[in-house]
Amino acid sequence: MNGYLGKILRIDLTNQKIKEEKINPKDAEMFMGGQGLASKILYDELPADVKGLDPENKLVFMTGPLTGIVSSKFEAVTKSPLSKFLGDANSGGFWGPELRFAGYDGLILEGAVPEPKKKNSVYITIFDNDVEIRNAKQAKIWGKSIEKTVTQIKKIHNDPKIKIAAIGPAGENLVRYANIMTDYRALGRCGMGAVMGSKGVKAIAIRGINKNAIPVADPDKVINIITTLNENVMADVSTMGFSMAGTPVNVIVSHSMGDLPVKYWRKGVFNIKKIDGQAILDINIKAPTCYACPIHCHRYIKLDSMNYVGKGPEYETIGAFGSLLMIDELEPIVEANKLCNDLGMDTISCGSSIGFAMEAFERGIITEEEIGMDLTWGNAESMIKLVNMIAKRDGFGDVLAEGVMRAGEKIGKGAADFAQHVKGMETPMHDPRALQGLGLHYATEPSGARHSNAHNLITYELPNIASPQLGIKKIIKRDVAEGKAEIVKKVQDYSVVVASYVVCGFASVGKSIITHLDAYNAIVGKEYTIDDILTIGERISNIRRALNIKLGATASDDTLPKRLTAEPVDEGGSKGIVSKLDVMLPKYYEIRDWDPESGKPSKAKLESLGLKKIAKDLWG
Amino acid sequence: MNGYLGKILRIDLTNQKIKEEKINPKDAEMFMGGQGLASKILYDELPADVKGLDPENKLVFMTGPLTGIVSSKFEAVTKSPLSKFLGDANSGGFWGPELRFAGYDGLILEGAVPEPKKKNSVYITIFDNDVEIRNAKQAKIWGKSIEKTVTQIKKIHNDPKIKIAAIGPAGENLVRYANIMTDYRALGRCGMGAVMGSKGVKAIAIRGINKNAIPVADPDKVINIITTLNENVMADVSTMGFSMAGTPVNVIVSHSMGDLPVKYWRKGVFNIKKIDGQAILDINIKAPTCYACPIHCHRYIKLDSMNYVGKGPEYETIGAFGSLLMIDELEPIVEANKLCNDLGMDTISCGSSIGFAMEAFERGIITEEEIGMDLTWGNAESMIKLVNMIAKRDGFGDVLAEGVMRAGEKIGKGAADFAQHVKGMETPMHDPRALQGLGLHYATEPSGARHSNAHNLITYELPNIASPQLGIKKIIKRDVAEGKAEIVKKVQDYSVVVASYVVCGFASVGKSIITHLDAYNAIVGKEYTIDDILTIGERISNIRRALNIKLGATASDDTLPKRLTAEPVDEGGSKGIVSKLDVMLPKYYEIRDWDPESGKPSKAKLESLGLKKIAKDLWG
Repeated sequence: MNGYLGKILRIDLTNQKIKEEKINPKDAEMFMGGQGLASKILYDELPADVKGLDPENKLVFMTGPLTGIVSSKFEAVTKSPLSKFLGDANSGGFWGPELRFAGYDGLILEGAVPEPKKKNSVYITIFDNDVEIRNAKQAKIWGKSIEKTVTQIKKIHNDPKIKIAAIGPAGENLVRYANIMTDYRALGRCGMGAVMGSKGVKAIAIRGINKNAIPVADPDKVINIITTLNENVMADVSTMGFSMAGTPVNVIVSHSMGDLPVKYWRKGVFNIKKIDGQAILDINIKAPTCYACPIHCHRYIKLDSMNYVGKGPEYETIGAFGSLLMIDELEPIVEANKLCNDLGMDTISCGSSIGFAMEAFERGIITEEEIGMDLTWGNAESMIKLVNMIAKRDGFGDVLAEGVMRAGEKIGKGAADFAQHVKGMETPMHDPRALQGLGLHYATEPSGARHSNAHNLITYELPNIASPQLGIKKIIKRDVAEGKAEIVKKVQDYSVVVASYVVCGFASVGKSIITHLDAYNAIVGKEYTIDDILTIGERISNIRRALNIKLGATASDDTLPKRLTAEPVDEGGSKGIVSKLDVMLPKYYEIRDWDPESGKPSKAKLESLGLKKIAKDLWG
Repeated sequence: MNGYLGKILRIDLTNQKIKEEKINPKDAEMFMGGQGLASKILYDELPADVKGLDPENKLVFMTGPLTGIVSSKFEAVTKSPLSKFLGDANSGGFWGPELRFAGYDGLILEGAVPEPKKKNSVYITIFDNDVEIRNAKQAKIWGKSIEKTVTQIKKIHNDPKIKIAAIGPAGENLVRYANIMTDYRALGRCGMGAVMGSKGVKAIAIRGINKNAIPVADPDKVINIITTLNENVMADVSTMGFSMAGTPVNVIVSHSMGDLPVKYWRKGVFNIKKIDGQAILDINIKAPTCYACPIHCHRYIKLDSMNYVGKGPEYETIGAFGSLLMIDELEPIVEANKLCNDLGMDTISCGSSIGFAMEAFERGIITEEEIGMDLTWGNAESMIKLVNMIAKRDGFGDVLAEGVMRAGEKIGKGAADFAQHVKGMETPMHDPRALQGLGLHYATEPSGARHSNAHNLITYELPNIASPQLGIKKIIKRDVAEGKAEIVKKVQDYSVVVASYVVCGFASVGKSIITHLDAYNAIVGKEYTIDDILTIGERISNIRRALNIKLGATASDDTLPKRLTAEPVDEGGSKGIVSKLDVMLPKYYEIRDWDPESGKPSKAKLESLGLKKIAKDLWG
């Protein structure tokens, strides 16, 4: 019995129909699972003109062959309501494994409940193979915070072990960067929560008790690989840091390299003393794990000054609500983080939208009279107020709930010119002026400015670490553009493999790259080499690109905000440097064999990757 | 194919003979592996009057059914040259799994090379099933430090992946608490290194490449258990602390409870600011793992003031070279730790021997003229000097190399009265006045005052944590003696299971107690309950007791040093409290069904545990 993905659920909200489907074995082999397989399904099924919040949009949750065995991770892919094209997010925790234990490798949501949503909204229960669509109003969860929703569902079904993916008020209100919360983790970016909200689905609750439901080809081999995996995962300096102090350990490293954005990408140095990894470590009380993971990168904190015990902010959140807004105290960051987790919003896009508004305020484009508050840099009180207003789409919050691309257009007066995003996706908290390769990735990644589809790239660029495992043998300086195109292509191709296995980027570094491959081979019963795997990755990169092309993307969408290519900061680790995207991009197209005008993968490239139908779709 | 232990190596040093042997399947089932099975072998084979350093003594290295699968651990058991009866030690790292990958579950060393050792000493290589005894002098390793020995062996055989267990100069010189170093871990206590040295074995080097050599009954189940195990292991607050800051995290906790010994067990409060967990965390650069473990409790440090990069001291070492000796600076502790690791000595017994000497010095029993140095409390320079002298058995170091029991007798003048040990084994860095149950354990544990065979006890007593998994439902206060006998018996019986599975005590807390049982069942193909397992544990406790009886122990050996039962400290968390051993011990014998005079397990008890032959040996 091989361990390829086999069975998915398709739930049609319009007609309240539940269907079990077999995954095409050829697709499972060609696209692995997770991001690869979900992208293939969406390429086949999405209309070219679909909008993110249309009932015709589909939201695909997909695990991978490694999920529930050596990994906690799963993926969600959709037409993003925030970025212009495809959107994806991944989450750890326990929901993905639980879906597999219930007997399903994936789940497609399509259609939408009829209006009014408040009355007709639903939640889905998957208790092993007993799948039901239930009324969310009767369950008294529509309108509720994530925490209340989760508590209520566990109470109704009298089982504290149910794993729940849920949206909060932000998702119900179609905030374009609403997220889906899963345990203490999240499907964070690209507005997954808004898509789920647009379909009228408040939550998906799973209980699967059959751990033996997951097939593997060679169980003995898998055992031996698992036991070595921990060792290899923990041997890397980056995982060690995350394990000891969580992602906030990055604050001091990134800041020293000029990688931590300050004052909405205009400054290079900030007072990080009260918001860095040590500050979090000092108040750390618990470090919970995701399923099967030795790293335990997440942090619970006890902050006496706020009388707060709960989730601590991640690195990205500290950037987005801290340095980006010139806020150097921990309390408001923790408060904003708590609100976002409970209201169901991506902290990166939320903080970025507020940063964008602060710059507009400084420039006088928006005024205190218009928006009802002072938005001077560092005004933490207004920041907290705005987080609440965005989730409820109250007043000026309604504008910022659209994300910076659309907010810039709505505000006018040149505001769009300094909105920091790629393809509509707010730039995460790593600066492409400090990390040249990352800039090329931001520009070319189908879902826009993302750090999760290029984790290894950040790792390799920050300390100039090569990756012998991936055949990246030369150490490349982070601020050098030359030679980066080759590396970015390779790292992207491996990153989509990570997102299709599906495993965690944090765990897929150094030696564990080989161990993950060993695990994949033992699970599916093959003997792939790293080169084979990178070819599968290239195939996945190309189908994601093809899906974007289908949705209207061209090479002109592969850009960076002007600030990053033309406006250097005047101090810190990336002082005086801008992204040399113009140097890297032509080389990148050449290596990718993508057409530099239409942006389309060449016919030959697509055919060589076994994507003949797509070659025909794109080129006739 | 079940996963019980099956094959061991027997190496006779006197005759230079190597033999493969099958383990009696009945013994493997009754005694599991590790400490249980090794104790059974020694009970059968050791002469009653054997001494620790006699050629007739045997040194048994034994893995367990879980070693190399979910665990890194293995055990060594012998007649201790330090304590009066049996001695055991366990080690993590990679050596135990490697032995299993080479195809062997255990290894018995017996006999001894002929004198002179310097010329005839050997090292053993196990390269899969190619086992050889090689000359250590020719290899230029006899006389060398651990580090040089390891480097040299890897160089000779041109393989950096060889796993090596080696003794240092202290083991060669028969220091009674010499250890055996394995990677960065150690078989620390009971003088294992002296036994190996007495046989003329400098090192055992292993390379096993067949991970599939380890049999398991139900591989699919094992996979699922492994993936859950990490989660359960990391869910416990104690593992989380060890994972984040290493064992030094205990310094502050133990100190606040009056559990950290100060001034050779006479004070309750100390200046721990520069030697606590935070101090180690501040200079922590790396946290390497043992095989298959998510905790990574070990620490490498970078201490600029010493220009030092290397292993950091564990909690026990900080106690033994720090508070015990009134040394409150990190540098001398790090230096002493480095010396012990390189010379191959147990830090606990070494520090304790020096503490004993400092008290003798204070009392005027030994003088500067006699020993050639000042031994005032806190004299770090003399402490370092003594560590070196002990390993070489130079001058007064020769006396302290005997351990405090024998040194007390040699020094005379009443020194033996304040020597802190049980059955000859120096008391580790947890105070039985703070933890009443632990005192009962120190007194009754066959190998003497030990913390490793009762890890769970320390955990349960320190924060008053109950263990629903073991059926310990009531929270018991640490300073209360009543009701402790039942708990100590149960925790001891489970601890020897931990040492026979063999798994790590740090990983075997809370929910993972059940997960380890699940793993054992899936590996050996049984359906044991916790009660079954505790019965096996009781059997192992009783065969260890029987071995001690055979070696001459009686109930009169179940004592504590007078200081702990009669001399309270005057400040700190255990101010005014003494160990109420007299309250606990009679109840303990009753529960154990052990004769309170001879100390022998009753005939009925032995027979009920399936130990009929032993019942006959002991009672006729």
